[in-house]
Amino acid sequence: MTRVVVDVMLKPEILDPQGQAVADALPRLGVSGIESVRVGKRIEIEFSGAPDLDQAREIADRLLANPVIEDYTVRVEEPAA
Amino acid sequence: MTRVVVDVMLKPEILDPQGQAVADALPRLGVSGIESVRVGKRIEIEFSGAPDLDQAREIADRLLANPVIEDYTVRVEEPAA
Repeated sequence: MTRVVVDVMLKPEILDPQGQAVADALPRLGVSGIESVRVGKRIEIEFSGAPDLDQAREIADRLLANPVIEDYTVRVEEPAA
Repeated sequence: MTRVVVDVMLKPEILDPQGQAVADALPRLGVSGIESVRVGKRIEIEFSGAPDLDQAREIADRLLANPVIEDYTVRVEEPAA
């Protein structure tokens, strides 16, 4: 079984209110030195056999991401030893 | 500027209806050979100076993840060349 990971993030020019809310809460935790926080999605797809990255890209494009406002990356995740 | 990435996923024993919905939609795309889909969060934290992983872990624990139902990992992301 092989895992393909799709990371979906809002494009840099799109405002991210969820990330902004986290960033705004940091001073309450006594945390400083953080420029920005962006919140996106991580999708783990388990292939039963060899992973098909083209197929994973099609899934990302049609089901997981909104290409108007989001960018995504697709990669095979090496199993942890 | 250094980026720390926090991946938050539902614990394996917790049902993931969002991932299940994606998995159920795959046959309509003509995709087969996929065992499961899990949907989680990816959070990118940009530190202005050196990243503080302990601080990132505290943010994950207190703001980003629900430790009752979610696991998280914290790592420094190397800048793409």
